[in-house]
Amino acid sequence: MSSEFQVKSDPELWEKLGMDVPRFSGMPTMLTNAYRGIFLSQKNRPEAMAYFDTMVENIHTGRIREIVDAKESGKPVIGTFCVYVPEELVVAAGGICIGLCGGAQGSIADAEKILPRNICPMVKSAFGFKVGKICPYFQVVDLVYGETTCDAKKKTWELLDRYVPTHVMEIPQMKRERDKVLWVEEVKEFKTAVEKITGNTTDFDAIAGGIRTINAKRAALQRLNSLRHHNPSPISGKDMLLIEQIAFYDEPVRFAKKVHELCDELDRRIKDGVAVAPKSTPRILVSGTPMALPNWKLHHIIESSGAVVVNEESCIGTRYYKDLIEEGSENVEQQLERLTERYMKIDCSCFTPNDDRIDQVIREYEESAAEGVIDYCLQFCHTYNIEAVKLREACEKRGIPFMAIETDYSPDDVGQLQTRVEAFIEQIRG
Amino acid sequence: MSSEFQVKSDPELWEKLGMDVPRFSGMPTMLTNAYRGIFLSQKNRPEAMAYFDTMVENIHTGRIREIVDAKESGKPVIGTFCVYVPEELVVAAGGICIGLCGGAQGSIADAEKILPRNICPMVKSAFGFKVGKICPYFQVVDLVYGETTCDAKKKTWELLDRYVPTHVMEIPQMKRERDKVLWVEEVKEFKTAVEKITGNTTDFDAIAGGIRTINAKRAALQRLNSLRHHNPSPISGKDMLLIEQIAFYDEPVRFAKKVHELCDELDRRIKDGVAVAPKSTPRILVSGTPMALPNWKLHHIIESSGAVVVNEESCIGTRYYKDLIEEGSENVEQQLERLTERYMKIDCSCFTPNDDRIDQVIREYEESAAEGVIDYCLQFCHTYNIEAVKLREACEKRGIPFMAIETDYSPDDVGQLQTRVEAFIEQIRG
Repeated sequence: MSSEFQVKSDPELWEKLGMDVPRFSGMPTMLTNAYRGIFLSQKNRPEAMAYFDTMVENIHTGRIREIVDAKESGKPVIGTFCVYVPEELVVAAGGICIGLCGGAQGSIADAEKILPRNICPMVKSAFGFKVGKICPYFQVVDLVYGETTCDAKKKTWELLDRYVPTHVMEIPQMKRERDKVLWVEEVKEFKTAVEKITGNTTDFDAIAGGIRTINAKRAALQRLNSLRHHNPSPISGKDMLLIEQIAFYDEPVRFAKKVHELCDELDRRIKDGVAVAPKSTPRILVSGTPMALPNWKLHHIIESSGAVVVNEESCIGTRYYKDLIEEGSENVEQQLERLTERYMKIDCSCFTPNDDRIDQVIREYEESAAEGVIDYCLQFCHTYNIEAVKLREACEKRGIPFMAIETDYSPDDVGQLQTRVEAFIEQIRG
Repeated sequence: MSSEFQVKSDPELWEKLGMDVPRFSGMPTMLTNAYRGIFLSQKNRPEAMAYFDTMVENIHTGRIREIVDAKESGKPVIGTFCVYVPEELVVAAGGICIGLCGGAQGSIADAEKILPRNICPMVKSAFGFKVGKICPYFQVVDLVYGETTCDAKKKTWELLDRYVPTHVMEIPQMKRERDKVLWVEEVKEFKTAVEKITGNTTDFDAIAGGIRTINAKRAALQRLNSLRHHNPSPISGKDMLLIEQIAFYDEPVRFAKKVHELCDELDRRIKDGVAVAPKSTPRILVSGTPMALPNWKLHHIIESSGAVVVNEESCIGTRYYKDLIEEGSENVEQQLERLTERYMKIDCSCFTPNDDRIDQVIREYEESAAEGVIDYCLQFCHTYNIEAVKLREACEKRGIPFMAIETDYSPDDVGQLQTRVEAFIEQIRG
């Protein structure tokens, strides 16, 4: 597989989508090389990873064509930047929901022509992808649906709207009854925005179907994460992260099926004692801000330093799939209420207070048999950065080794981070 | 006056308030020297500034004693960090509302022992004042009432609560009907929190009185700002800024009276052609983030560079006083509704969209006969920093000279800022 792996190109398709084709044409080769070095160099990968490798090969071609075909048949395509925007309602309307968060250094210079430099790299990367016309997903969406979960995103959507129709969902900052009242209204408004594209009202059965589909996707990821927690690890942290990233752009039914196939293989591996690293390998839980594709920086540093990542407590990880929507509602109102209740369980640091998250990290630490916590903070992300004060205290109180890292997508600090991570792993080894 | 000016000390009072007296004892001399250099060195100041000089002399003593006396007689003392927390309801309950935003470099190191370094200096300064026990106002409050207007403040309140009882008002991020519904509830909760201290319900007449008092204070500042807009300027930008800062800790009735006395003098000055700078002096409107006492950095740079500041479009300036609450309500419900409506007019960049603010800056630019806009952004304040993109465009479209500055409280960049400001003023001179 390794030597054959090749991220595919389709300049004709890209041209049709209004991309900057000359500029983008170097991207597949860059991604191919990065992927070979970071993923395919791993030893003893599960065979079922082949599907996810294929998803990377087709990231700018095959999957895009699927989405274009769906769009041409009248299905809505919605781009989002946050796990608070309910994809169930897009799926219910027969549409496709794509996570557009940017994880690449390459688009940041485009963004910095307009945005301040000292804001979150994820926001800059996403904005730069659109401004530079170098992301096929951004080009194919009918509209993007942002939210108000941080200062930088909230204000960037005002500028993004000049390049692509941008709606904004107001996510409250507390979780009391009156916040829920507002939140349910926001969910209804989102539903209406999706329906405007299709021209049809999404009815009870359709919503039930959307909830079922996305519940199933999240349940598959829950199963995978549980298996992955086994010691010794049957799958690497990098491969798990990749799957979690693919969850944001793959077709959800197929994706869940492939995740279960992988789980079946991991079941066999565990039974057969097959692992990606010996039991003595230090086990790291990564908490904090999400890692959008192709941001594999920290995981690659950790796993190149002789440890294994055993859990992602982040929006790319457990925050995305730990909660399901209660099914069996009696009417649309109840469906939307239960949907909102599920979303209110996500413990993003944008909420105040947010102490549930601290408890959740400790819980996941125990469930994953981790031996240390590395809290990952995207540069200038004030909410996670300040919340790290409480997380550090909680870890220190329990004798859990803790390290906080704040970084961006630049390769400049990789050497320094590697040194710090190695020292941390040594500390765990004791 | 100049040679006699001396910020007063009262170690006994400070001791009683639980301050770090040895550490704080150097503060009055430092402030005295800074004030003499920055304010008393100005030529041709209005005589009525004498009162405000006295307010600075008594900032750590006389005014604190007044507040302690009030507190000991059972009156609530509430600390705030934002012009969205309605002081009318504190005054209505017979209490005192104090703006606790920090504007000093000296407390930042205290904060950085706990908080991340790369957040807003105003938040760090305020937090450091409490942690270091070096602010008498922080020591005298019954509780502080924070809000959710930015990521850094919202999350810092969770930590501040360990040092002083900290409540949080959720300020929505949009201004639609459902946001107003939530907002009115927040206002009621604030009212209840103040009432808990007094043990009495604040009734209709008391609220009407509180609204009248604060309306009168804001109206006095409106009058002053209008007079100050006269060309040539009858008062310096630094003196105006100082008065705006004192508005956040002085007794409101006395303050309004003293502002009107100053206005009467400015009326006479304008009639007599007395000004602080000739008509040819370049006139600068400062927009953006607030400047908490003793943050006089940018105004001092601008006015030392041969220009005069003619307007502050910020929470320390017009955003604090441009809107009044409509009086004559028929019941408490209507009072609180109208109060909320007034607060919803404040155009902080924490809202999305917030284009009203862009229009407001242009309006104030015209009203103040300004000749250039310097947009002031506290370091790491993402909302104002990103909103500056739109403000720059609006200014450039109208041919208004525009410069954006992002800085903190450190003296390190003063030389560089001075050079940039001088070049900008030269550009205005043409």
